[in-house]
Amino acid sequence: MSAIGRIAVVSVGPSLEEGRWSAKAVVGEAVPITATVFREGHGMVGATVVITLPDGTVTTLPMDAANPGIALFRAHFIPSVEGEHSFRVEGWADPVGSWEHTAAVKLPTGTDAALVLAEGAAILERARDEVDRPAAQRKALTSAVAVLRDPTTDPAACLDLALTPAVCAALAEAPLRDSVTPSREYPLRVDRERALFSAWYEFFPRSEGAVQDPATGRWTSGTFETAARRLPAIAAMGFDVVYLTPIHPIGSTYRKGPDNALTASSTDPGSPYAIGSADGGHDAVHPDLGTMEDFWAFVAAARGRGLEVALDIALQCSPDHPWVREHPEWFSTRADGSIAYAENPPKKYHDIYPLSFERDPEGILREVRRILEVWIDAGVTVFRMDNPHTKPLPFWEELLADVASTHPEVIFLSEAFTRPPMMHTLAKIGFHQSMTYFTWRPTAPELGAYLEELSGEASFFMRPNFFPTTPDILTPDLQGAGAPVFAARAVAAATGSPSWGIYSGYELVEDEARPDAEEQRNNEKYEYRPRDWTRAKDYGIEALLTILNATRRAHPALQRLRGLTVHTTDNPAVLCYSRHIDAAHSPSGKPDTVVVALSLDGRASQEATIYLDPTAFGLPDGPFGATDALSGADLAWGPEFHVSLGPDLAMAIVGAVHHKRPNRSTGRKSLG
Amino acid sequence: MSAIGRIAVVSVGPSLEEGRWSAKAVVGEAVPITATVFREGHGMVGATVVITLPDGTVTTLPMDAANPGIALFRAHFIPSVEGEHSFRVEGWADPVGSWEHTAAVKLPTGTDAALVLAEGAAILERARDEVDRPAAQRKALTSAVAVLRDPTTDPAACLDLALTPAVCAALAEAPLRDSVTPSREYPLRVDRERALFSAWYEFFPRSEGAVQDPATGRWTSGTFETAARRLPAIAAMGFDVVYLTPIHPIGSTYRKGPDNALTASSTDPGSPYAIGSADGGHDAVHPDLGTMEDFWAFVAAARGRGLEVALDIALQCSPDHPWVREHPEWFSTRADGSIAYAENPPKKYHDIYPLSFERDPEGILREVRRILEVWIDAGVTVFRMDNPHTKPLPFWEELLADVASTHPEVIFLSEAFTRPPMMHTLAKIGFHQSMTYFTWRPTAPELGAYLEELSGEASFFMRPNFFPTTPDILTPDLQGAGAPVFAARAVAAATGSPSWGIYSGYELVEDEARPDAEEQRNNEKYEYRPRDWTRAKDYGIEALLTILNATRRAHPALQRLRGLTVHTTDNPAVLCYSRHIDAAHSPSGKPDTVVVALSLDGRASQEATIYLDPTAFGLPDGPFGATDALSGADLAWGPEFHVSLGPDLAMAIVGAVHHKRPNRSTGRKSLG
Repeated sequence: MSAIGRIAVVSVGPSLEEGRWSAKAVVGEAVPITATVFREGHGMVGATVVITLPDGTVTTLPMDAANPGIALFRAHFIPSVEGEHSFRVEGWADPVGSWEHTAAVKLPTGTDAALVLAEGAAILERARDEVDRPAAQRKALTSAVAVLRDPTTDPAACLDLALTPAVCAALAEAPLRDSVTPSREYPLRVDRERALFSAWYEFFPRSEGAVQDPATGRWTSGTFETAARRLPAIAAMGFDVVYLTPIHPIGSTYRKGPDNALTASSTDPGSPYAIGSADGGHDAVHPDLGTMEDFWAFVAAARGRGLEVALDIALQCSPDHPWVREHPEWFSTRADGSIAYAENPPKKYHDIYPLSFERDPEGILREVRRILEVWIDAGVTVFRMDNPHTKPLPFWEELLADVASTHPEVIFLSEAFTRPPMMHTLAKIGFHQSMTYFTWRPTAPELGAYLEELSGEASFFMRPNFFPTTPDILTPDLQGAGAPVFAARAVAAATGSPSWGIYSGYELVEDEARPDAEEQRNNEKYEYRPRDWTRAKDYGIEALLTILNATRRAHPALQRLRGLTVHTTDNPAVLCYSRHIDAAHSPSGKPDTVVVALSLDGRASQEATIYLDPTAFGLPDGPFGATDALSGADLAWGPEFHVSLGPDLAMAIVGAVHHKRPNRSTGRKSLG
Repeated sequence: MSAIGRIAVVSVGPSLEEGRWSAKAVVGEAVPITATVFREGHGMVGATVVITLPDGTVTTLPMDAANPGIALFRAHFIPSVEGEHSFRVEGWADPVGSWEHTAAVKLPTGTDAALVLAEGAAILERARDEVDRPAAQRKALTSAVAVLRDPTTDPAACLDLALTPAVCAALAEAPLRDSVTPSREYPLRVDRERALFSAWYEFFPRSEGAVQDPATGRWTSGTFETAARRLPAIAAMGFDVVYLTPIHPIGSTYRKGPDNALTASSTDPGSPYAIGSADGGHDAVHPDLGTMEDFWAFVAAARGRGLEVALDIALQCSPDHPWVREHPEWFSTRADGSIAYAENPPKKYHDIYPLSFERDPEGILREVRRILEVWIDAGVTVFRMDNPHTKPLPFWEELLADVASTHPEVIFLSEAFTRPPMMHTLAKIGFHQSMTYFTWRPTAPELGAYLEELSGEASFFMRPNFFPTTPDILTPDLQGAGAPVFAARAVAAATGSPSWGIYSGYELVEDEARPDAEEQRNNEKYEYRPRDWTRAKDYGIEALLTILNATRRAHPALQRLRGLTVHTTDNPAVLCYSRHIDAAHSPSGKPDTVVVALSLDGRASQEATIYLDPTAFGLPDGPFGATDALSGADLAWGPEFHVSLGPDLAMAIVGAVHHKRPNRSTGRKSLG
């Protein structure tokens, strides 16, 4: 047990189980650090954040009394370097503040004036002499002491005379701190900004440029080279991560046919998630896609377009994977001696052998680490780890820590769709981004509540990535829904989370589901699906994605997870939320606010009155202007405004709020 | 940073900042211990609480899967001894459960039957051989293995044949646990039951038996001997703690007169909170009250009536206190060399010198510890510490830990009315009970919300004590309110908190306030107030207090803080809450439920329909019976029932719910 200190410092945050794991931040992001700091009696207290940077240097931040009624102090730390930071909160007695408080009560009525002035002079002398400060500050404090010691000073005026702006600034910058009491150290992991703010485009490289011989029906696979031809369009839409489904050799034993059919014909390419063949395993590329050199060239081409390459790593094997022969101890053996294939009873997946970590966890860890290095060497900077919730948590914690120690720039996305504690814990133990329940929040109230959850306390450990669809997920609300709902879900994803992603074909509103399944028919996992991109312009979605990504780049408010507020609407079918960032916390140095109004109803138009508080954005409590980033329309909004949304209109408005520059001619003079 | 283990064990509770301080419990109280426990994949997990008792012995409790959807496990620990305990949660892989789950899916359809049976046999052999268990359990498991190995067994039936009740009981009692993963240790402090469940009666001993000479107006103080004559009545009302305002010598310098008047006449007794005179300080008794031997006799008399004595310790001094002369370093000195009297600008309290802990905290700690020992020697077992929020927190933490180490039976009440973090932290660092905001929750919705707060997470660190009035507090809702509101507040206090207290005179409905003050006129702190107890029967309050204390003793549900539910009513002026305890958690071994319906409106009658869920009490979802502990009336209640409350009727109903014994003749057979 750790004792209470002379000054109470409790409930420090952000904290994951009191420092068990690091809270998360990215360079440039304002991290609110909070603590409850108080002491006995009426004496005033102050609080300071002390931050230790990765190189061991120490920096401090003053904390503001954010809510005196509950003794809550807060500072915002904006990291400028990556790596493991730590911070503590120091609570301290504030003799100057305590004296000022007493003096402000007593001096106006002349109560105990001589005594109060003498005590003030003594305390300001201490502030001058006991705190390391520049000569100018010392001089200002000496003047203040002289005022308090001057018997001719009017007691009623002397507080104003002594505490000049220069004195106040000196005391704020270098306060006199008694009984300094530190909290424990709390870890804070700072990553590069893309860990938080990113726009992903997912595709199957074999589909891009795949051609079918109309005569024989035989397919020729797309290659890294043909897939690279898609990169300019992806970049033009404003994405910054291009994410490839697995690119490794595919097994032939128990290969699945179209839409997961138990048997495959000789022309079926197989699922890229059935990894490994005589051509190699997780460290190899599928020969149909090209050579490793071709992959290097693909990565270079992507980088040339400002795109990072994300690889999908699915740690499972086809029965033909080299590991099955070389490392039988990495798989489970049934009582009859056979290797256990994947099962989710009564379902069986004969084409997949899951890894078993029980017998040689260290060996698997070493091998996976080696494989990642192969791809990192090839220029891959992002990994989307498939089904991490089916592998042991200590495996991820060790693997990710090891990669972070040598390649801190590498970002890992957790592709877990499972119970909340597992998703949260994967994020806490090292994943940079996480898939979420976004796709299963189809209504405005559900989505609003989820946005509040993710942007609240969860923001300190889990960075969401919103995908409206994936090769595995086409939710009922999107099935046969057409372009309007696809547009609405794209807006929600792009503005609801600082990271979002699109699965190829979204531009073409591929909304047909396989019967009785929540995935597309002709699932691309089992077939080549080359697409006619000339048709993309027909739906308006390509243009929308482009506008959304441009809007995200233009608006710092959309680049952060915190700062979201869901606003009241009088129609539960209409969701309205804002993202706001204060000037002091914005990379641009300017306040930024985006208000999104959204209908998810693809069948009927929806009207709503929206109620919000402009003063929360730093605006006057009245009308304000905004520009709809989607339509370009000027919006005359205010604390209460009306929207009409629907399939025959726009499904969403993305209102970039006008923040006027302060009118300098009417600016108030700075007051002491 | 501490790593995730092989099995994830996170969010363990009760936890105060991950073990920074001990969670609180009393002997006989069911403490819910919870943890989120899960692993990768589909394998089943189990969890065990491992408790280390104060003597170092270790005991374990199986945890139930309380909410599988969020991986929440829970066990209830009922401590049987006092002292510092600690607990950890062990998460583990459950090979038997995992197999059983698979077998239950596969065997009914004969899928992989031979393999499943062989695997089951191997696992049950492990359960038999790898876990220490009695011969009967081994034998049962051997039979189960034989069933699974018998080729003639019908696979569809074999799960039932193998997992007999004896096998299930053996596995539940001594499970096969793989990959056992412990959490950190969490401290749990167990006190005697009175720390949680107590009924206090507060009085000024000098008032009891004080007489005024009608001729001269001079008073003769009551004494310990005359005060002891009140003890039988206090005991007869069912109280178990008699709490005396300070009994020490009172200073004469700047002595306050009636109702805090700045000057006192020679006959005014002075405030017992202006402690210390030539007759002594905190270790002495006021000569008017008698000798130390008289006090010992008073304590003995109280104990003879089943009453513990609580002393009020106010760590402050009159200018005449011996410490002022002997230990000037224990007081603050102003710039003019004078000792600082108490101030809350602009208010001044010349009759009180607060202690200053800055210069000799260890000296003050030693002296206070010595003084407490004087009173503990005299038989005092409870201390009400006055204004603890004006003394340093480390002082309390050290003092209380030291007393607990030698006198674990001694109970300390924190009399802090201040900001929530201070009240919470005083409780966390060692106070056994705390004063609360109860008096400032005058309406039904406010009181309901507060009861929920106190009986929720706060229950693990703060034990409330509800006083409807004190010598310092007569809130507006009680001023001139008459007997009905006094009755309602007494019911709320006695049933809303397992500890409650009454300030003498409540029986006489002393509801007259000093103008512009929230305290009684003729405040007893400054005057003798002998009372005519023969009038107590006129108001019904004395009888009510007696019934309330008897009801509290009869109902285990009222003796615990957790188990409270606020129920929906259709009238916000009517509050309804229940307290319930399951049979397994009740000292009586029987379920117990008390439903309280309450109006706090002394001016009008209030009708309400109340909605509650009888199944939460273990009753069928339909009508149920109850007996009003206040009126003795039989109540025919159900999921929806009507109450009429008001000043002309009863203000409250305290419905003791009828729990019928289970009808054994219709009991279901135990199933395998």
